Amino acid sequence: MKIKDKIIKALLEKYREIYLLGRINALLSWDLNVNLPPKASEGRASQSAYLTKLIAEKWLDSEFRNLLEKAIIKQKSLKTEERAIVRNLNWAGKYYLNVPKKVIIDFAQTSSRAFMVWQKAKTDDKFKDFLPHLKKLISLNREIAEHLGYKDNPYDALLDLYEPGLTSKICKGIFDKLQPELTRVLARIQKSENYKDSSELTEEKNYPIEVQKQLSIFVLKRMGYDFGAGRMDISSHPFTDTLDRWDVRITNRYKLSDFRESLMVAMHEGGHALYELGVDGIYAGTPLDGGVSLGIHESQSRFWENQVGRSESFLKFMTPVFQAFYPSELSKIDSEGIFRLFNQVKPSLIRTEADEVTYNLHIMLRFELEEVMINGRVMADDLPEIWRQKMKKYLEIVPETDREGVLQDVHWSHGPMGYFPTYTLGNLYAAQFTARMKKEINIADFCEKGELGVILSWLRANIHRYGSLYWPDELAQKATGEALNPRYFLEYIKEKYSKIYEVSL
Amino acid sequence: MKIKDKIIKALLEKYREIYLLGRINALLSWDLNVNLPPKASEGRASQSAYLTKLIAEKWLDSEFRNLLEKAIIKQKSLKTEERAIVRNLNWAGKYYLNVPKKVIIDFAQTSSRAFMVWQKAKTDDKFKDFLPHLKKLISLNREIAEHLGYKDNPYDALLDLYEPGLTSKICKGIFDKLQPELTRVLARIQKSENYKDSSELTEEKNYPIEVQKQLSIFVLKRMGYDFGAGRMDISSHPFTDTLDRWDVRITNRYKLSDFRESLMVAMHEGGHALYELGVDGIYAGTPLDGGVSLGIHESQSRFWENQVGRSESFLKFMTPVFQAFYPSELSKIDSEGIFRLFNQVKPSLIRTEADEVTYNLHIMLRFELEEVMINGRVMADDLPEIWRQKMKKYLEIVPETDREGVLQDVHWSHGPMGYFPTYTLGNLYAAQFTARMKKEINIADFCEKGELGVILSWLRANIHRYGSLYWPDELAQKATGEALNPRYFLEYIKEKYSKIYEVSL
Repeated sequence: MKIKDKIIKALLEKYREIYLLGRINALLSWDLNVNLPPKASEGRASQSAYLTKLIAEKWLDSEFRNLLEKAIIKQKSLKTEERAIVRNLNWAGKYYLNVPKKVIIDFAQTSSRAFMVWQKAKTDDKFKDFLPHLKKLISLNREIAEHLGYKDNPYDALLDLYEPGLTSKICKGIFDKLQPELTRVLARIQKSENYKDSSELTEEKNYPIEVQKQLSIFVLKRMGYDFGAGRMDISSHPFTDTLDRWDVRITNRYKLSDFRESLMVAMHEGGHALYELGVDGIYAGTPLDGGVSLGIHESQSRFWENQVGRSESFLKFMTPVFQAFYPSELSKIDSEGIFRLFNQVKPSLIRTEADEVTYNLHIMLRFELEEVMINGRVMADDLPEIWRQKMKKYLEIVPETDREGVLQDVHWSHGPMGYFPTYTLGNLYAAQFTARMKKEINIADFCEKGELGVILSWLRANIHRYGSLYWPDELAQKATGEALNPRYFLEYIKEKYSKIYEVSL
Repeated sequence: MKIKDKIIKALLEKYREIYLLGRINALLSWDLNVNLPPKASEGRASQSAYLTKLIAEKWLDSEFRNLLEKAIIKQKSLKTEERAIVRNLNWAGKYYLNVPKKVIIDFAQTSSRAFMVWQKAKTDDKFKDFLPHLKKLISLNREIAEHLGYKDNPYDALLDLYEPGLTSKICKGIFDKLQPELTRVLARIQKSENYKDSSELTEEKNYPIEVQKQLSIFVLKRMGYDFGAGRMDISSHPFTDTLDRWDVRITNRYKLSDFRESLMVAMHEGGHALYELGVDGIYAGTPLDGGVSLGIHESQSRFWENQVGRSESFLKFMTPVFQAFYPSELSKIDSEGIFRLFNQVKPSLIRTEADEVTYNLHIMLRFELEEVMINGRVMADDLPEIWRQKMKKYLEIVPETDREGVLQDVHWSHGPMGYFPTYTLGNLYAAQFTARMKKEINIADFCEKGELGVILSWLRANIHRYGSLYWPDELAQKATGEALNPRYFLEYIKEKYSKIYEVSL
């Protein structure tokens, strides 16, 4: 990237320190989730808080602020890339400029500690142990929202942190379209002759972790994930972390009784990693590096997990592979059976195990809870109960433990609220990108041959390489010719599941 | 620790940032050695160099320097701990104050890169690939020595970085005492009836890595290593790294054909880790935290590895344990056989595989090479050849490949020169501490019962808890009643090996 403007050049030079500190902090966080000995949690919290303080200081550095203000003034005269740099810095800097350093550090420290407590509280199924930490995080999130400012709803200030421009109104609009349709589709499926209330994978079988790992690696390599620039480790909640332009790591988790989850996790996290690794190298270390928003990021993970991973054609290709990896467990099941096995619709307690039809209802529940918590209309003490009520309302099942209820997700323990809705955005974007891709590529054909290179190339050319150059709406417009439209997702769901359940949706 | 002096208090507050950055840098280095994907080496080098720059800036901070200068002036009126804080800061700060920041960063960056190159060069047995990096590191080390200043020999400036006050003259004095004796002992052993030129573990056997790992964990737990404040991972060169007061990690490596090495490595690195974890908690995050010098550190690792791990009594305790872990491989060997198996004297190419008699000759070779390199009396190009000549001279064996010669150690690729002699100091201190401990504790008795707690307690009470409060000489004086004395090591060697080889030494 050739930057001619002197102010932008100076900004980029200063930004490089923020970038480096951010990558180092990413290593601290990766290590916290993958390796940290339990007694070191306080120490790691101090380390992370200290780095966060340094990062905040860099954003608040008066020279940097002066340069940025000058750049904002002349923004209109700048070239596309330069303008995007200014926009991104202004957007990301908002947090540091408006939220007092004390609060930022407190937030980092509190969440680092809360994560360790959450892990144990979840294992022990003791919401009460996590409650004081959650309360503090809610109150910090509220404080942050106040400092950031908002028009209608404090929650909007938080949503915007993860998806530029997202508001509760927009979210509500989307869920208002999705929920009635999904509830209707779910009801029809449940009433269909082919619906099974039990799990398809009923027999007690044993899928060794090492074999699951090798299968994940096999598929990740096919997808184009480069193990020379990444790794796959184990963590209780899978994630992707960018430690450097050439060090994008994913994690997985393994269930001995089910071979599907780890594979879907690998494809999901692999999708995130491919996005980060696919950004044009000329943006490395600049504010244009990395994925543009969590919603677009999630579109990439969902694309690989659902649009590819759970597709009939890809699972056709995978059937003999599965049988080679698990000869005694899966030799009797044909590709149609495998396809059904990966696409069973059934209301479940755990979001990460939810099927494509019910998944967004889990998100809606979390969106609604966050919205009322941030607005102080609900006390954290009451969360377990409200959780159960909403599960009953949307999915007609109720968790018996908090471990399977309000304690299931890692997110709140990490601090952020306003993050969950981007998962639904991701599902919608993924379907919209796929619809567009289909006009150019015979996706099914390539999936059936296990040749995923052409698909990755399309994503690289139309999405990945831009990094954070275009904002989500602009990017969707550029890649698909229109802004986000939930229609594609609903069409996708209806087409796919009417076929599986042989019912008109 | 109650610090009353205001200047010292202010110094400690400022030092805390140096401490935190140092621990974060330790994580970067741990991850580099344990996890880093190959393509990320440049990125990691930049991250490490950036942190090094930040650390250098903290040491050079004018406010910090002013406080330190004031503290130095009033040093005599301070209490023991306060005085030690000033002494340690002054000693550690010397590097940052005298060596230009540019050189410090260049050194960090060069060594981070050199490490990745060394790994591959060693695998490929291509010294030439590593040579340009080694040359740059030698020249940087020389530059650093010039900036640090010295009386007689630039190498002294480097030695002092790892062992306060150590000089080539002192080293030479020690080796002059050791070498003739060790050469004589070696010759007598080799001429004895019981000497075997072949390895005792000749049969092709297979010791699964997972079993070796579990055995290491078994012994580490007996030693008192707390896995709640540490971990054991795999790296090509085993090491211990302190990431936090409660996060001291060790690494190991496994050879399928030999169960001994990983166990000795575990005890060795475990010894380092116990030292770091045993420092009085009141020193956490201050300049009194952590081991005082590399020589004392190595005494702790060598103590557990050799004085305990290779002792007749401990191996007696371990024999049934070995047989439980490796029933088909070791069921026929009795404890006397096991004792011999762990104490076979035989000149070997690889330092880390050397027995106690020949080990210090490997160090002497490295000391001599470093000394001539730093003094420019030898070109790096000629190292492989000189290495072979010296191996011939001291051990009468010659490596056929550089992988088994000049490329075998990781140390130079990490940057430091002047580090190796501390290994010999460690051996000497370990023997001296043991001789003293024996007057108070029946070590053999406890080892034979596998009860290592009393031994750890002695080390904690006499060495560990002091952290960096006393300098090596002072600490040795306090713990044993005299300064470093090679006599104890030579006595130990003669006593132990005259018994094993039934020969008068």
